Amino acid sequence: MRVGILGGGQLARMMVLAGTPLGLEFTVLDPAEDACAGVIAKQIHAAYDDEEALDRLANNCDLVTFEFENVPAAVAARLARHAPVFPPPQALATAQDRLLEKRLFDQLGIPVARYRAVDDLAALRQAAAELGLPAVLKTRTQGYDGKGQRVLRKEDELEAAWRELAGAPCILEAMIPFQREVSQIAVRDRHGEVRFYPLCENSHRHGILMTTRASPDDPLQGAARQHTRKLLESLHYVGVLALEFFVRDGELLANEFAPRVHNTGHWSIEGAISSQFENHLRAVTGLPLGETDARGPSAMVNLIGELPPSEALLALPGVHLHRYGKAPKPGRKIGHVGIQAPSSAELEARIRRVEAIIAGVGQAAA
Amino acid sequence: MRVGILGGGQLARMMVLAGTPLGLEFTVLDPAEDACAGVIAKQIHAAYDDEEALDRLANNCDLVTFEFENVPAAVAARLARHAPVFPPPQALATAQDRLLEKRLFDQLGIPVARYRAVDDLAALRQAAAELGLPAVLKTRTQGYDGKGQRVLRKEDELEAAWRELAGAPCILEAMIPFQREVSQIAVRDRHGEVRFYPLCENSHRHGILMTTRASPDDPLQGAARQHTRKLLESLHYVGVLALEFFVRDGELLANEFAPRVHNTGHWSIEGAISSQFENHLRAVTGLPLGETDARGPSAMVNLIGELPPSEALLALPGVHLHRYGKAPKPGRKIGHVGIQAPSSAELEARIRRVEAIIAGVGQAAA
Repeated sequence: MRVGILGGGQLARMMVLAGTPLGLEFTVLDPAEDACAGVIAKQIHAAYDDEEALDRLANNCDLVTFEFENVPAAVAARLARHAPVFPPPQALATAQDRLLEKRLFDQLGIPVARYRAVDDLAALRQAAAELGLPAVLKTRTQGYDGKGQRVLRKEDELEAAWRELAGAPCILEAMIPFQREVSQIAVRDRHGEVRFYPLCENSHRHGILMTTRASPDDPLQGAARQHTRKLLESLHYVGVLALEFFVRDGELLANEFAPRVHNTGHWSIEGAISSQFENHLRAVTGLPLGETDARGPSAMVNLIGELPPSEALLALPGVHLHRYGKAPKPGRKIGHVGIQAPSSAELEARIRRVEAIIAGVGQAAA
Repeated sequence: MRVGILGGGQLARMMVLAGTPLGLEFTVLDPAEDACAGVIAKQIHAAYDDEEALDRLANNCDLVTFEFENVPAAVAARLARHAPVFPPPQALATAQDRLLEKRLFDQLGIPVARYRAVDDLAALRQAAAELGLPAVLKTRTQGYDGKGQRVLRKEDELEAAWRELAGAPCILEAMIPFQREVSQIAVRDRHGEVRFYPLCENSHRHGILMTTRASPDDPLQGAARQHTRKLLESLHYVGVLALEFFVRDGELLANEFAPRVHNTGHWSIEGAISSQFENHLRAVTGLPLGETDARGPSAMVNLIGELPPSEALLALPGVHLHRYGKAPKPGRKIGHVGIQAPSSAELEARIRRVEAIIAGVGQAAA
């Protein structure tokens, strides 16, 4: 079976690695000359809105899926003329607009932080008065890794923040004093069967994910699954989806969802019986789902900006290195490390050793 | 780092899948238009004795390794002019000649079945008289999967067998009434560190490997490791090597070795902490070796001739499918199934279910 992927970055690359043993053949569409999935898949070099290229991708594939969610509705519609498209375009349209996303959460009874739609400066002032400050102003579209966001602490900051975000349609969200961030990764197949990975606990630095730990005994596991199942079913979803939550005083508040394989699921490559990449492809190609259980204590640490020496990382037990083949650049995700251990204590020790190696490189470069 | 592989079949394909996350980029040299590693690697389409192509491979890679051992010495020498070659060409030369191989086993004190070199019909008669019948006549070179072999039971069969093997240089081996077949897979890095996978127990059908079970508690584990270590060290070996044994009355008798990743090590992809493919690449590229321990009860079943439906196999728990992207053909290895389970009893149950699915396809085709 021939699978097309819109986007040729590391998520596509890891899909190709997981799907090739299933007998799948891949074509990625990506405008970059050095798209990192392009070394192990056919690549169509073209812009994401190049209609001829989109037609070529869909015509040469039995189905099309996505590496990212910021795909204009017109692109998904164009692809769907020629080939089945999974996950459903409606899921992409909802995920790429924070207002539609929050409204869907509301409608499904999934708790979220209080928010207001903000389309002009007057609405921003009104929203700030209603929600109180501090609050977070976020563009409705195109935000990721902390981009397109401003924290507002005082009333006199509103106007400058509104200008910095270029007057784009926004939402204002009450600032949540959360204690933890968790994510639920799940997969739904074409027949509606749903499987859940263990809840993941995530830590960020400068708005970018650094470390994920699989947390199968988390007391919020059950609630996270309930919310995620409602979301999957309402979207008639097919494939892997990640739903991110803040945890405030032991309660989940949904932040956002990603209609795709997700950085907080990379630990599953070695850490789960079937990885998120394999299960996404099983789901979209109509194969039965694989088991999502963790094989033991598992974590993932991102490699951001520059790579530590492979030798140092691979000398550690229980460590698997994933280099994405991307050029180093500050703030850029260019690899990750999967970490497994026979016990949770040993897992924490190994995470610390990996983090020390990464910190050493950061210092050497500073 | 750029790695060249001589051969572009399933072993090369699984190396590419294991090495891409390490940041390696691959070029395979293979004469076949549809070499199955060619869909995920650069391919040079050329004969294995095409000197210009060999030069191009070595010039465009930082090192070269092999997918198979039947490489003329001149080819390895040609490659070595331009790039380091691992494993060492001497190991290939020894493995491809049964007489050199047996003599090396003798020299290292590794027990083998009694044998004689046979260069003409008179020598064959003499050898049969000395060893007694039944015995096995094997060509010194080019034998694999039971090809190039004749079992001799009566004296009047000698001449016909000699003619059938076209008068090629042979050895005659005493027939061993063995109870089991096992293989030891090991990896040695550039600094001489050696790691061993659990001993594997193998079963064959019509001379072709069908099923391998990782057998970490095998009482012959220690002896197999001792023999394999001597072999690796005498060859100054770098990479993965497999040494196959017959077990007769609780004792090991070496059959042959393969200077490469091996079919009896495919279970390690999901079943070991680091797979044989990853460890081969870690070794030849100078990276530290990964752990070779089994992650639990593990086995592998080959898919020969034709593929059962993916749906049936993937509906079973603990099963991973590896399709090689090769055209179906009687007797051809076109895929395998990795099987893991929480207990040995459950592993056996899962193996039986996989074998039943495979048998069902065989019957439907018959």
